[in-house]
Amino acid sequence: MPDIKLTYFETTGIAEAVRLILSYARQPFIDERITLDDWLDRKSEMPFGQVPVIEIDGKRYHQSMAIARYLAKQYGLAGKDDKENMEIDSIAYSINDFRIFFTEVLWDTNPEEKARKRDIVIKEKIPYFLEKFEKIIEENGGFFYGNRVTWADLMFVSLQPYFEVAIGFDILQEYPFLKEYADKISEIPGIKEWISKRPKKCCIRDLNIASVNSSNS
Amino acid sequence: MPDIKLTYFETTGIAEAVRLILSYARQPFIDERITLDDWLDRKSEMPFGQVPVIEIDGKRYHQSMAIARYLAKQYGLAGKDDKENMEIDSIAYSINDFRIFFTEVLWDTNPEEKARKRDIVIKEKIPYFLEKFEKIIEENGGFFYGNRVTWADLMFVSLQPYFEVAIGFDILQEYPFLKEYADKISEIPGIKEWISKRPKKCCIRDLNIASVNSSNS
Repeated sequence: MPDIKLTYFETTGIAEAVRLILSYARQPFIDERITLDDWLDRKSEMPFGQVPVIEIDGKRYHQSMAIARYLAKQYGLAGKDDKENMEIDSIAYSINDFRIFFTEVLWDTNPEEKARKRDIVIKEKIPYFLEKFEKIIEENGGFFYGNRVTWADLMFVSLQPYFEVAIGFDILQEYPFLKEYADKISEIPGIKEWISKRPKKCCIRDLNIASVNSSNS
Repeated sequence: MPDIKLTYFETTGIAEAVRLILSYARQPFIDERITLDDWLDRKSEMPFGQVPVIEIDGKRYHQSMAIARYLAKQYGLAGKDDKENMEIDSIAYSINDFRIFFTEVLWDTNPEEKARKRDIVIKEKIPYFLEKFEKIIEENGGFFYGNRVTWADLMFVSLQPYFEVAIGFDILQEYPFLKEYADKISEIPGIKEWISKRPKKCCIRDLNIASVNSSNS
C-alpha cells in the first residue's frame, strides 16, 4: 500500500470525500489537519495556496476532485470505462455545483446578503437539485451511478455536515428517500468506522472563516 | 468516427475547450448554438438546466470538464496513466478556479461590486495565477504538463476571449512568455483552422447576461 498523507483544515469540507474514499479502501493515511493559526504560515507551501493537498509516496498532488477521482479509480470506486467515468464525473460536478451555493452562504460576511443567498438555497436550489438527485438514485438502484457504489456517492455523503452547517439544518430532513440513501452509504464498512472515529470538530462553523478566505496574494 | 453534437450558447465560454479538442482531433461535430431568446424554452431539456451538453452517438452527456476530459482521452490529449491524469486534472481545475474570478466580474450586476471584483482580479488574481502558470509551463518544456500538448493547454487557450471580455483587456499583454505560449498552442493544426473559422460573435459581452443567469427553478 502507498504511503499517504492528506493535508487539510480541521474540518470535513472538500477533503472529506477523499477521507471517505481512503477509509472505504481501508488505506491507512496520515490525516494532517492545519489549524487556522498555522494556516497563514503554511499557505505559501501549497500549490496555488490551497488545501487539500495529498502526498502519495512522497509526491504531492492537489485539487480535491482530481485527488478523489484518482483514488476512486485505484480502489474500485470509478467507472469501468471512459464513458462511465465521464458520467460519474458529470454527477460529481453537479454535486459540486450544488455545494458551491452553500459555500457562498457560508462565507458571506454581509448579514443581509447571507440571508438572501440562504433563502435562495432553501427555496430554489435544494428542491431543484435534490429532486434531480433523487430521480437519478431511483433510476440507478439506490446509487448515483450504475447500481453500485462509486465516488459520487461518497462525495455526496461527505458533504452532509457541510450543507448542514452552512444552512442550519439537515437538508435531507424532508427527503426521506435521500436520507435513507445517505444512511445506507454511511453504513458501508470502512466508511462507518471512519465516521464514528473522525474528529468531532468536523465543521467550519467554529472557525474564523475570514482568515481562511484571505487573499491568494 | 462517432456522431457528435455539442450544444451551447453562441459564445466561446466554458464550451470552447471542447470545441478546441474536437477541432484538434479533426472530429466533425454539429456546433449547435442556442440563442438567448430560445434558452428559456430549452433550459428544462438539459440535465441540471445547463449547457454545454454533448451528444455522442445519440447519448447525452453534460458538464464541460467531464466532457473535455473524456474527449481528451480519446484523442491523445490526456495523460499516459492515472497519476498523470490526476496531475493534468489538477491543472485544469486550477485554470477553472482562475476562470471563476472572471465569471464573478462578468455576471455582477452591481456596478460598484463589479468594479471592486475587477480590481481584485487585476491586482491579485492575474499576477498570482499567471506567475504560477508561467513557472509550470517553463518547467514542462512550453506546455502545462509533460513537455507535450494536453487538454489543459487547450482549456487555457480556449478561455482567452472570455478573460478579455470579462476584464476589458488581454490578460497576457504584460506576460510575453505566456503570450508566446498561447500563440504557439493556437497555431497547432486543427486548432488554428477552428479559430480562424469560428463565429466572430464569440464572446458573451453582447448577450443579455441576466437571462442566462436566471434561476434554476
